[in-house]
Amino acid sequence: MTEPFAIPRSVEWNDTHITILNQQKLPLVTEYLQLKNIKDVWEAIASLKVRGAPAIGITAAYGLALAAQQYETESVEIFKKQLQKDRDYLASARPTAVNLFWALDRLVTSVSHVSSVNEAKTTLVHEAIRIQIEDEDVCRRIGEHALSLFQNGDRILTICNAGSIATARYGTALAPFYLAKEKGMNLHVYASETRPVLQGARLTTWELMQAGVDVTLITDNMAAQTIKAKNITAVIVGADRIAANGDTANKIGTFGLALLAKAFGIPFYVAAPLSTIDLATKTGDEIPIEERNPEEVTHLAGTRIAPEGVNVYNPAFDVTPHHLITAIITEQGIIRGNYETELPALFAKEAHHEAI
Amino acid sequence: MTEPFAIPRSVEWNDTHITILNQQKLPLVTEYLQLKNIKDVWEAIASLKVRGAPAIGITAAYGLALAAQQYETESVEIFKKQLQKDRDYLASARPTAVNLFWALDRLVTSVSHVSSVNEAKTTLVHEAIRIQIEDEDVCRRIGEHALSLFQNGDRILTICNAGSIATARYGTALAPFYLAKEKGMNLHVYASETRPVLQGARLTTWELMQAGVDVTLITDNMAAQTIKAKNITAVIVGADRIAANGDTANKIGTFGLALLAKAFGIPFYVAAPLSTIDLATKTGDEIPIEERNPEEVTHLAGTRIAPEGVNVYNPAFDVTPHHLITAIITEQGIIRGNYETELPALFAKEAHHEAI
Repeated sequence: MTEPFAIPRSVEWNDTHITILNQQKLPLVTEYLQLKNIKDVWEAIASLKVRGAPAIGITAAYGLALAAQQYETESVEIFKKQLQKDRDYLASARPTAVNLFWALDRLVTSVSHVSSVNEAKTTLVHEAIRIQIEDEDVCRRIGEHALSLFQNGDRILTICNAGSIATARYGTALAPFYLAKEKGMNLHVYASETRPVLQGARLTTWELMQAGVDVTLITDNMAAQTIKAKNITAVIVGADRIAANGDTANKIGTFGLALLAKAFGIPFYVAAPLSTIDLATKTGDEIPIEERNPEEVTHLAGTRIAPEGVNVYNPAFDVTPHHLITAIITEQGIIRGNYETELPALFAKEAHHEAI
Repeated sequence: MTEPFAIPRSVEWNDTHITILNQQKLPLVTEYLQLKNIKDVWEAIASLKVRGAPAIGITAAYGLALAAQQYETESVEIFKKQLQKDRDYLASARPTAVNLFWALDRLVTSVSHVSSVNEAKTTLVHEAIRIQIEDEDVCRRIGEHALSLFQNGDRILTICNAGSIATARYGTALAPFYLAKEKGMNLHVYASETRPVLQGARLTTWELMQAGVDVTLITDNMAAQTIKAKNITAVIVGADRIAANGDTANKIGTFGLALLAKAFGIPFYVAAPLSTIDLATKTGDEIPIEERNPEEVTHLAGTRIAPEGVNVYNPAFDVTPHHLITAIITEQGIIRGNYETELPALFAKEAHHEAI
């Protein structure tokens, strides 16, 4: 029996190569690429064929493990030098991607105490696979907690792509929809297209459709009318960074949706792994708002849509103040308000989870 | 001395022809077209080269006046028959445009009591010019009232194109910005791009830039962040239809901006002529929300941006409830709340204005 629908994965280890989903070509073409050497991997990351912090980290880890399989030395010392060189090379593919460095360094550390090159090669592959398995586990747990907040028939609005193809599997904000599907529950997703880069239109709709999840696309300015006309029951979003007081940086447009959710009296949820929580950032005021290239706004699909020389304001993300967030959903559970004490408590829970 | 900036007009009478701005080619190309006969005029209206209810009405009126100049009969009766035929032909160019019928019928009525074909020909031209002058006057008065609400240095957000090129001149929501420029006041406009059809990105930025008005383009989902980061002082929008209780139908996205304005505690203004107010519509609940072609959402500049077969919700406009509207600005003045009694009073004022 064939399964008509499946949750797409963005990256998979295949021993002699890495298979990735080419997210650059979505949604027009569903293309999987085989990355056979470290140059292929570098290029795939640099050209945004793979995107989403966890997916980038996993791909880079597999890339480093793949490269190391071809080292011909028997000297652990020479092996480690080559590994460090390749680590630096892959780290240069996207110099601002924190998760990329984290995954690469985790692989380098994993072979600190190996006694042979063979052991090192096996250790790297296992460690890279472990990163993917752990991320899938984190996402699934986020999804289970999030799903506990929804009921059959709920209509839920999301923005951007906090989805399966940005992570190992399931995603964060989209995870509950896949788990609902597995359990035979019907949830109706409304995806905001997410200008300027259109991750909602291009990616969220695509991946939910692959899994047979009911999804409807709207433009970003239809949110208020949609909440009213379609009786939206909740908004759920991912996060780029969560400050110690719960203020949440996420894709531009998130703050506006949180204000709309409050105006309509419906819950606004943030779904994100603990790794997104940065206790060193006290409040959202400390998070500088990155402004990106005006051409993202003035052009669409390569075509100019605004006059030459027009002024543009193009903030890449915004910060939703904690008082607008009904709950933050992590792999360690759901917290509702009182974030300054509850967020550190999640890490204590996590430490306990890892110790057992 | 040449004037470096000018408020663009969308239509102009030139005795032997009508000149229109080809809005279909904006903002990439600034093209003016000469319409030399009734077929040219029909085609310009049908193909959306001219848009905006008042601008369509004015163009059609000029088209009918232009056609009538060529009638070769000396019989008033035959003249009127031909005029009615051409009126019906032009009315078929955009069968849902109420303003089109209103303008054409006003021309037909203007020649009810003429005693010669020559008189009829002159009357038609004068009546068409009068329609344009009246609309320009209405817009200018709206602009003066609106400007009284702003101060030098204000930063004001708008959506869609309630502008000069949609009317005889000045526009409605954009009128105060032109008048401020004339008076040497600095107002800073933020234009929301207005997906799906991008009237903000394509038209509002263009026409304000022609007149040297400071304008910054944002995508629709940047509104909340922009209000916060740029200290937006007010939101001003046009209207498609205003119900007797003040509920206002306007371009999709307007309702969301009104909710954001309330959340930030800044005023939300509707600028529109009395002709937009429909006292027969009791509340916004009576206004059906038109849904348009899904391709407007799934495609951009001819390129598909969403998966084949995706569900789409594409409401063309939304209704902003009256309690979110700080003031309605008309040619007869500004009313703040208490719309159910204040709106009919405006018409009484208008009747008085016409009588004197």
